This record gives sequence, structure tokens and C-alpha cells, in this order.
Amino acid sequence: MPTHFIILAAGKGTRMESDLPKVLHEVGGAPLIAHALRAADSLIPERVIVVTGYGGDAVAAAALRWNPEAIIARQDEQLGTGHAAQMALPALGGAAGDVFVTFGDTPFIRTATLEAMQAARAAHDIVVLGFEAADPDARYGRLVTDGDSLNAIVEYKDADAATRAIRLCNSGVMCLSARKLPDLLAQLTNDNAAGEFYLTDIVAIARAAGLTAGVVTCPEEETLGINSRAELAAAEAIFQRRARADAVEDGVQLIAPDTVHFAFDTLLGRDAVIEPYVVFATGVTVESGARIRAFSHLEGAHVSRGAIVGPYARLRPGAELAEDVHVGNFVEIKNATIGEGSKANHLTYIGDADVGSGTNIGAGTITVNYDGVFKHRTTIGNRAFIGSHSTLIAPVTVADEGFTAAGSVITHDVAAGSMAIGRARQVDKPGFARSLMARLRAKKDAK
Amino acid sequence: MPTHFIILAAGKGTRMESDLPKVLHEVGGAPLIAHALRAADSLIPERVIVVTGYGGDAVAAAALRWNPEAIIARQDEQLGTGHAAQMALPALGGAAGDVFVTFGDTPFIRTATLEAMQAARAAHDIVVLGFEAADPDARYGRLVTDGDSLNAIVEYKDADAATRAIRLCNSGVMCLSARKLPDLLAQLTNDNAAGEFYLTDIVAIARAAGLTAGVVTCPEEETLGINSRAELAAAEAIFQRRARADAVEDGVQLIAPDTVHFAFDTLLGRDAVIEPYVVFATGVTVESGARIRAFSHLEGAHVSRGAIVGPYARLRPGAELAEDVHVGNFVEIKNATIGEGSKANHLTYIGDADVGSGTNIGAGTITVNYDGVFKHRTTIGNRAFIGSHSTLIAPVTVADEGFTAAGSVITHDVAAGSMAIGRARQVDKPGFARSLMARLRAKKDAK
Amino acid sequence: MPTHFIILAAGKGTRMESDLPKVLHEVGGAPLIAHALRAADSLIPERVIVVTGYGGDAVAAAALRWNPEAIIARQDEQLGTGHAAQMALPALGGAAGDVFVTFGDTPFIRTATLEAMQAARAAHDIVVLGFEAADPDARYGRLVTDGDSLNAIVEYKDADAATRAIRLCNSGVMCLSARKLPDLLAQLTNDNAAGEFYLTDIVAIARAAGLTAGVVTCPEEETLGINSRAELAAAEAIFQRRARADAVEDGVQLIAPDTVHFAFDTLLGRDAVIEPYVVFATGVTVESGARIRAFSHLEGAHVSRGAIVGPYARLRPGAELAEDVHVGNFVEIKNATIGEGSKANHLTYIGDADVGSGTNIGAGTITVNYDGVFKHRTTIGNRAFIGSHSTLIAPVTVADEGFTAAGSVITHDVAAGSMAIGRARQVDKPGFARSLMARLRAKKDAK
Repeated sequence: MPTHFIILAAGKGTRMESDLPKVLHEVGGAPLIAHALRAADSLIPERVIVVTGYGGDAVAAAALRWNPEAIIARQDEQLGTGHAAQMALPALGGAAGDVFVTFGDTPFIRTATLEAMQAARAAHDIVVLGFEAADPDARYGRLVTDGDSLNAIVEYKDADAATRAIRLCNSGVMCLSARKLPDLLAQLTNDNAAGEFYLTDIVAIARAAGLTAGVVTCPEEETLGINSRAELAAAEAIFQRRARADAVEDGVQLIAPDTVHFAFDTLLGRDAVIEPYVVFATGVTVESGARIRAFSHLEGAHVSRGAIVGPYARLRPGAELAEDVHVGNFVEIKNATIGEGSKANHLTYIGDADVGSGTNIGAGTITVNYDGVFKHRTTIGNRAFIGSHSTLIAPVTVADEGFTAAGSVITHDVAAGSMAIGRARQVDKPGFARSLMARLRAKKDAK
Repeated sequence: MPTHFIILAAGKGTRMESDLPKVLHEVGGAPLIAHALRAADSLIPERVIVVTGYGGDAVAAAALRWNPEAIIARQDEQLGTGHAAQMALPALGGAAGDVFVTFGDTPFIRTATLEAMQAARAAHDIVVLGFEAADPDARYGRLVTDGDSLNAIVEYKDADAATRAIRLCNSGVMCLSARKLPDLLAQLTNDNAAGEFYLTDIVAIARAAGLTAGVVTCPEEETLGINSRAELAAAEAIFQRRARADAVEDGVQLIAPDTVHFAFDTLLGRDAVIEPYVVFATGVTVESGARIRAFSHLEGAHVSRGAIVGPYARLRPGAELAEDVHVGNFVEIKNATIGEGSKANHLTYIGDADVGSGTNIGAGTITVNYDGVFKHRTTIGNRAFIGSHSTLIAPVTVADEGFTAAGSVITHDVAAGSMAIGRARQVDKPGFARSLMARLRAKKDAK
Repeated sequence: MPTHFIILAAGKGTRMESDLPKVLHEVGGAPLIAHALRAADSLIPERVIVVTGYGGDAVAAAALRWNPEAIIARQDEQLGTGHAAQMALPALGGAAGDVFVTFGDTPFIRTATLEAMQAARAAHDIVVLGFEAADPDARYGRLVTDGDSLNAIVEYKDADAATRAIRLCNSGVMCLSARKLPDLLAQLTNDNAAGEFYLTDIVAIARAAGLTAGVVTCPEEETLGINSRAELAAAEAIFQRRARADAVEDGVQLIAPDTVHFAFDTLLGRDAVIEPYVVFATGVTVESGARIRAFSHLEGAHVSRGAIVGPYARLRPGAELAEDVHVGNFVEIKNATIGEGSKANHLTYIGDADVGSGTNIGAGTITVNYDGVFKHRTTIGNRAFIGSHSTLIAPVTVADEGFTAAGSVITHDVAAGSMAIGRARQVDKPGFARSLMARLRAKKDAK
């Protein structure tokens, strides 16, 4: 039986006090919509329909970046969640199977929870995701159950004291027969104070039609929706806590877990060692047995087994470090491959370059990749030796076992086994320093 | 009605185990006395009198730096808080209105609390600030009240069990008629174990004279006095927690609030984005929509809208970044203005300089501002291009659209649209690297 | 009376899921065995016997590195803690006095606790270390006591409900007469489900023989044994918390204690100031009144009174900073002495060097210490001035008051008071930059 998802992502999120559509605010470096898409993807769905509205083009673009197979539906008027779900029906196109309705601003639902909902469909026509709110006075809708069966969803404002005392609350997420969804949605009315079509109401409609409804519960954290900057900050904290715990459980050695910042897609190998104060932006993989030292910042980079990065290393997108590479302090690597066992340990910028294996890059080396208009590439071979304070003006190649003398400006290619020198000869002026300083100090005293 | 403040700041703070006068220890990068002065300033007072004693000159200097209008009074002998307040009377000079007595080592009183005390003066001659101590056994004086009225302040050591059971404690801060203060202080005696004049006793004196006293309460945190290094560390933590919460509330996006360190006077615009691990020392303003990336350290700097700073950027006093400036990794900017849209992204030191707009500063650029005795200034125009590893020896000017070749040492001015080259030509020695390495390795093997 | 220690360190630690022997996993930068050895050393013992097994050579090497006097015993088969203790008997050799049996994976026992056990030996033949487990269902053995006397140790799995309700648990650590240990161990049997000899059983054997046993208790934290990566991470957190609290108590000023990472052997002087985000790896001493600024990383370094380090300074092993030295941002110091009042404040690498006093090292200076095969040393005298962007090719000496011009490559010695220049003269090409840029932009547009 195929599975489908309708992800509601049309809201503006007025309480975010921001021009950015709500689902484009980021947690773990990825927009909320990406988290919702990832949760859906974990069930290998047939169709994933994203209903966009406010900032629709931007939301659609983001959704397609994270899932190119996603189908975009438009809700041009904001007439409620039920109306939003109706906008997805053409894309659903009468498909068989189960359909989940989830929310683009709810990033933490676990795969196991969705699977439990799917399993519960065996017993019920509609399965609603519920949770116990920690705050007994939380203003969520309450789930009125009778044993295994969900009798009604009562909005907080419509609930009497006895119903408000119920701790089981409605997350809004549901799973039901895709074939039955159109008919249920068609019966919704907007006969309420807000004049909106509420998706929640389909449970009552279904019950009245003799269908059954059930509840699956999960921790409140999984259902957290983001409606304000404070909630966004809280969500980031939850994301980081989960990511750190998952990494430790996977056998990664985090010396000080609370000081490591993860992105949505960080991949760390078992037995990798991560020192304190490391920031992983998106797109990073670190293989087993590599070590990321303190105060390092990685983004879009791959670090192979045995490599040592940092402290104070910055790996930018396109940095590819082979096995046993060392990248040390105050070194920036961008859009560059570094071959096995090569080293760049001090105060260096390697950008738009290919470096072979067994090569040593001296302190203070700079690849000059930009001439003010174009970017150019630097190529360095195997077992080369780039002297300290070398300036390599791209496009340029230093061939295997090539050597550049310290302090040289390299403007043309260096042949294999050749040494290139581009620096002035030292000239000494005996006594000059002493007399110069004396003159300067006299001038200062005279002031 | 004018308002006045007497801030008691004469104590040594023996328990700090430090030679520094207690009120000069810092929280949020500013001395405690500055926090007390800021709280007072929020009520736009007519006279602010700071009573100094231990380390009086240093305390006076600090007080005047933060409020040049402050009046300094001296307490040469440490004879108690009542005696300290008496030292302020000449400066108060019979002024009308309300006078607050506060403490230089109590940094967290909020404006709203002081305003509430002032409002309560309508009903009472003296208003005392109280709080509920979290620790029921805390050794603070207890406030004995009868409805709205304060009957007595009983020191903990003099209190019986019933009085000790009172949770309402005395902060020592009070507000009363400025005209009545001299007479009340004049009736104080030092007839107690310590032989000191206690300010607190004026409440009993006032009550005996038929005056009324009332209480305003605030959270215990606001009344926290700093008497030890442990309390100083706790105060710093409270300061940071408040500053982070205030920033989030103001619409600043802190990705990981607990990792951002604020100073006393940090100003961040709405929608500014602050990544993890950023330290703001004093004197920083960041405009809306600027982004401060991870591991950056800012002090005395201004960052305009659209600018991107870091990761690993250090802005020192006098760094002025115009709109859309980019300052990148391992870059230090000191006493320098950087014009709109200019970039210095890698391993660079810009000190004592003026850089125009649309200019690109290559990796590894250094402005040489110090000749061992004097500091000199570097000027770079608009749309200039400073090649990587340039050394600019100040005083020097690169005019608009000037260009310095990578690896050049620039010793004299570069005209508009001109290119300056100051580097040696590359010379190649074919095969030399290979033979040199062979010789060195043979030598090593021979050892 | 002499004291001896038997430290059991033979286990593999299967639950660590690592090839490294359990006691070689690190907390505070030192292996667990080093912590156990330090606890033992605090009692100035006569003999310290480390019983090794899994990875025995590596464990022995580590133990001897931290205590060269330690005696290594081997347990080739893992037949239980009682058997492991038997392996230590030849090394104990019938010595008189007290013997402690402790564990190589239990890093937090305090000296005061061991002293209390030793004191309790006056009243008892065997003293067992107990603790109250926070978790009432913890699966530790229970200590059944009668007043001051320990009657039995009952394993959790053998305990009835009443015994399980006892909160006093067995840490496994004990202290007893060294002379009596061999006879007690000889009576152990492996007649149990695991077929192992349990050290714990000697208490029952002793009691049956008419000897007395007592209990000393300590906080649960002190008895924490490390059996998994999660426990290792928890132990690191405990270690850091303790180290921070100890430093604050010792009068060190930690601006943000939770952001400072300590090693096993970090020594900070009273009134040293440590800013946020500082990492101390092993082997660091910082004298009173020195300041370590934010984002600094120190290892194997000594910082003297009045010195200022950072922000973003990296001190590596062998960095020795004399009084009032300043090491600033993006500066790395390795295996180098820096004399009194000298400064290296910006973007510099000083490795394998000796720098005199009163010397100024300009921004972007690099000592070139490696020629691809050998390391060489740089010597700089007193009151020298190294110009910015200097490249010093070792072996080389700049004598007292020597001066190198900014941007120079220094290949041979500079005499006292002499100035050395090794840079090309600036050449200007009027209008060339403007025409070059125009050509490049035209080329780009043509693409």
C-alpha cells in the first residue's frame, strides 16, 4: 500500500515578526520545511504534496531543493487547514493507500511515530497523533477517547472544565485512507467564529459517518510547532540536544558534547573524535577515526579517516581532505582537494586548488585565486614542498616534488623536482637600525 | 519633584580577596558602580552622589567616566552605612524631592522597581525595597509588616524564631523625602556590637517620630549584592542570562543564545543574526540585518546593515564597518573605517586605516602601521584591489582603483588606476629541489 | 606504617566498544589510569602495584609514564577481581602496613576519602568504601551494617527485597592489613554463576574468621566507574565541573566558568583572569595576574605574571612566555621562549625559536623552521624589531636591536643594531590597473 504526505506550509507566521515565510526559518541550518520533508521521506512515500501560500515561490523552491520529487500545491487564500488540505487533492489524484497530513513548521516528528500511526490504521479509518501536554492549562484541543477509540476532538475554547482536565492533546497530525479524504474534506464547513475550514473537524464527520478513529501518542517535543522566535530558539536547542545524543550513541567521541553544534545533515563516523567548540554547518561528513580539534568550523566538507583538522581550522564548501591530511591553525580551505598525508598546518589559505599526496604546505601560504574578475585554479603535485610565505598566483602548477623557496611569489609553473625562487636578496645596513630608532625617538621626544 | 540618588560605594570588599575596590570588579565588562549608576540614570535624577571610601580615587574616576555629572563624596572612616549616607548630605544640600539610597555593589535593580518605589512614596514617608529570600534560613534582616505598613526591620541575629520565619527580607535600598533625610540620619547611634551607624535604623526612628513606612518588593535576583568572587561569577551569569533573553525578545536572532557573551552596553539591531560563540566586549553596535558569524570577537566596533563578520573575525576599538562590508576569517580590524561593500576575507590585519567602498583586500594583507616609535595611517580608495600578501607600509595611500600586485611591498603612494608591483621575479632551478632533498635525506640518514 | 595500593586495571571494557583498553580512555586529557594513580599518590604510598591484563603493554607504559615507580603485575587470564588482586601479591611481597585495592577506571576518589578509610582502619580489619546510590533500584551490591560494623556485602541479584531496600552500596574499593590480604585471597572460591573469584567475598571470609569490617562513605560521584562512552562523557563533565569550581575557589577569575576546559594538570595562579572559551590541554601553568583572553588554546605552555595571551592565541608544547609578554590574535607559538615584555600580536608563527626581551615581532611574521627534512632554530635578541611580513629562514639570528624591514626574507644573520632588508623595490605602472580591469571585465562579458 503506497503512502502519501500532505505537508501544510502556507502560513505566514505573523508571530515570527519577520518577512521570511515561517517554514523557511532554520533549525540546524536547514529550513523547517526540510525537516518536515525528511520526516516524510523516512516512510518512502509515493507522493509528497507541499501546500504553499505566503511566500509560495520561495517555499516551493526550498521544498524542491530538499525533495525534487515533491509536488507543489497552492493555497492562494488562507481559509484554514481544511481548505489547505483540499488544495492538495488534485495532486493526490485519487491515489490509493494512506495519506498523512503534517505541518511544515513541526520539525521533530520521529519516523517511529509515523510508523506507529501507519500500523494503527489497521484498526482505524483515521489515526490522530496525540500527546500529553506538560502544562495542564495548555490551550490545545483535547482528545476525548473511549478505550482505544477517539470519540471527539474538542477545541480548548469550546471545552468544559471536565474536558479541559483531559491531558491528551491534539497535535493536528493525522493519517487516513487517501481514498476517503476527498469526501471528508468536502463536508467541512466554515461555520465558526474564525470563518475557517478546520481539518480537525473531519474526525467528527468521519465518526458521524460510522468510520472509526484512533490515537497514537508521542512525546510533546515531537509535536512542537514553531510560531515565534522564542520557539525557534527552543527548537534549535532541542535539535542540538538530539543531535549530540545521537552522535554519542553512534560511537562518536564528543569530548564536550554541549559545545558541538550540528547541522541537519552532519555525518560523523564511529570513533571520530570531536574536541570542544566545533561548529558543523551543513554538508559535512567526517569519517571514522578522524579528529576535529577545538574551535574548528566546517561546512560542505569531507574529512577522511586519520585526518586531523584544527584547532582553528576553517573548511569551506568543496574542501575534500584525503586520509591522514593535517589542516592546522588559522588555515582556510575552500573548494580544494588535499591528497593523502599532505599538511597545511599554519596561517594558510588554500582556495580553488588541487593538492597531491605527501605534500607539505608551509606556514603563511596563500593561493591567489582571484584577479578581481575571474577565479583561477592552483595545482600542486605529490611530495611537493611549498615554502613558508609562498604566494601562488593562479592559474599555476607546482609539479610533483616541486619546491618553492620561502617568501617566494610564484607566477609561473614549477616543473617536477624543480625549485622556484621569487624573492629579493637580503641586504644589510650595519648600525642603521640603531641610528634610525635613535632618530625616531628623538623626534618623538621633541613633540 | 526632582529625584536624587545616594550610591554607597565606600566598601573594600574584603571577601573578594583582591586589592581592587569591590565596586570596580566587573560584570558584563563594566564595573559594578557603572551598573548602579545606570540604574539611577534611568530615573533621570537631578543629583547622583557617589560615596567613596576604600580606593576612593579609583572609584571616583570610574564613576565619573560612566556619569560625568556624578557628585563624589568621601567617607574617610568606615563607620557604617548610616555614616556613609551622612557624608552625602552636603552634596544633597537641602534639595527637595525624593532621595534613593542604593549600593554600588548591587547591579541588577530594574527601572520598574525604582519607579514602583517612587510611586509608593505617595502613601509613605519611607519606602524600603524588600524581597522574598529563596533560602528560608538566609541571614538577611526581616521586614515586619502590618498590611501595607512597615513596622520594623529586625536584623537576623536579633530576630526570634517567629520573626526569622518571615520570608520578606530587607534589601537595604530605600527611598524617602530628601528634606527629611538629614534629621533622621542625625538621630542614628552606633550603640551596637559593631559600633557602626546603620542606615536601616532610620526606619525605626521615623516610625517613632510618627512617620509612615512601606515596602515595595522585587525578585531576590535584583537585590543581589556582590561580596565574593563566587557571587561575582554568579552575577556575571545572571547578567548574561538577562542580556540574552532581552536580545531574543528584541528580535535579534541568536542561533545558540547560551554561547553569546554580552557586555554592559552591547546594542544589537532587530533581525541581526548572531551565530554561536561570539564575544561582545564593550562598545559594540550591530545594525539590523548584519550577521556576526561564529567565533568572532568584537570590541568598540560598529557593524552596519548587511555586513557579514567572521567566522573568526576580530574587530577592535575604532573598527567601523559600513553597509555590506565582509570581514572574514582570521582578520583583525583596528581603528579603521571600511567603506560600503568592501571585503577583507582572509588572514589580514588592517590597523589605523581608511578603506573606501567597493574595495577588495586580498588574503594575507598587512598594513604596517608601526615603525617602532610612531603609528602611521594607511589610506585606500574606492574600488581598489589590494593583491594577496600585500604589505602596505604606512603612511601610504592607494588611490581609487589602485591595484597592488600579489606579494608586493608597497612603500610609496599608488596613484588612481595605477598598478604597483614590489616583488622579485621568479627564477627556476630545474632538478634542484630533487637533489637538495636527496642531500638532506642522506645527511639525516648519516646521523 | 607504610601504605600500599593495588590498582586493578586489567579489564577490556567491552561496553566501551573500542580497541583501546578501558583505563586508557581519557578524562581531562589524561587516561583514567593516571587519575587512579594520582589518587593513590596523594597518600604517599610505599608500593603502587598496577594489575594489567587486556592491552597490558600499553596500560603498563601509560602507568609508568604517570608514576615511574609503579610496579606492574600481569593478570593473563580474566578470572575476576579476586584473582587480579592475587596477581599483585608477589609485588606486595609480605610488606607491612595498609593496602588499598582500587580500580583503574574509577577516577574521582578524593584524598580525604582515602584518608578517612585509613583512619577507620584503627577500628576495623577491613574498611570498605560505600555510598548512597541516588537510584534506589541501582544494581550495586548492598552493604548490610549493624551500627558501625559491616556484616555482609550482598550482590544485588542475590538480595531479597528488604536487602535491596538498603541504600548503602558497595564501591568495591577497600583498605585492609597488607599482611592479612594473602590469606584472605587464598580462601576465595569461584563457585558462582560466572565462575570468577570475587574480591568482595573476602569480607565474608574475614568476618567468618572473626575479623571486623567497617564502612566509610563518600558521595556517589567519587565511586563512578567508567564502562561506556556515555559514562566517559559524564565523567568528563564531572571532571570539568570540579576543575572549574576548584579554580574559582583558588581565586582564579573565570569570567564564564562553564566555557573553560581544563586538563588533568592545569595550574592557574590566583588572580589570573581567564576569559570565555579557553581550552587548556595538558601541561599548562599560568602565573598569577596573567590574562588568557577568549578563544585561546594552550598545551604544554608556561605563561608568566603580567602576560596577556589571545584572543585566538595558540600556545603549543614548549611555549615559554616570560613576564609581560603579549601574544595576540591568530598567533601560534611552539617550542619557543619569549623574553620579558616582548610582543607578537598578529597573525604570526614562532616555532623553534628564542626571542629576547623588549622585542617587537610584527604582524605576519613567520619563522621558517623546517626545510623538508630538518628542523632549525631561530634566535632573536633583545629590543629587536621584526618588521611585518618578515620571513626568518632558520637557522638564523637577529642580534640585539636588530631590525628587519617589513616584507623581508631573512636568510642570514643580522648583526646587533643592524637593519636587514630583503624585498624588491616598488615599481608603478600608471593607468595599468584601470586598463587591466577593463580588459578582464570585457573578457567576462564576452563569455
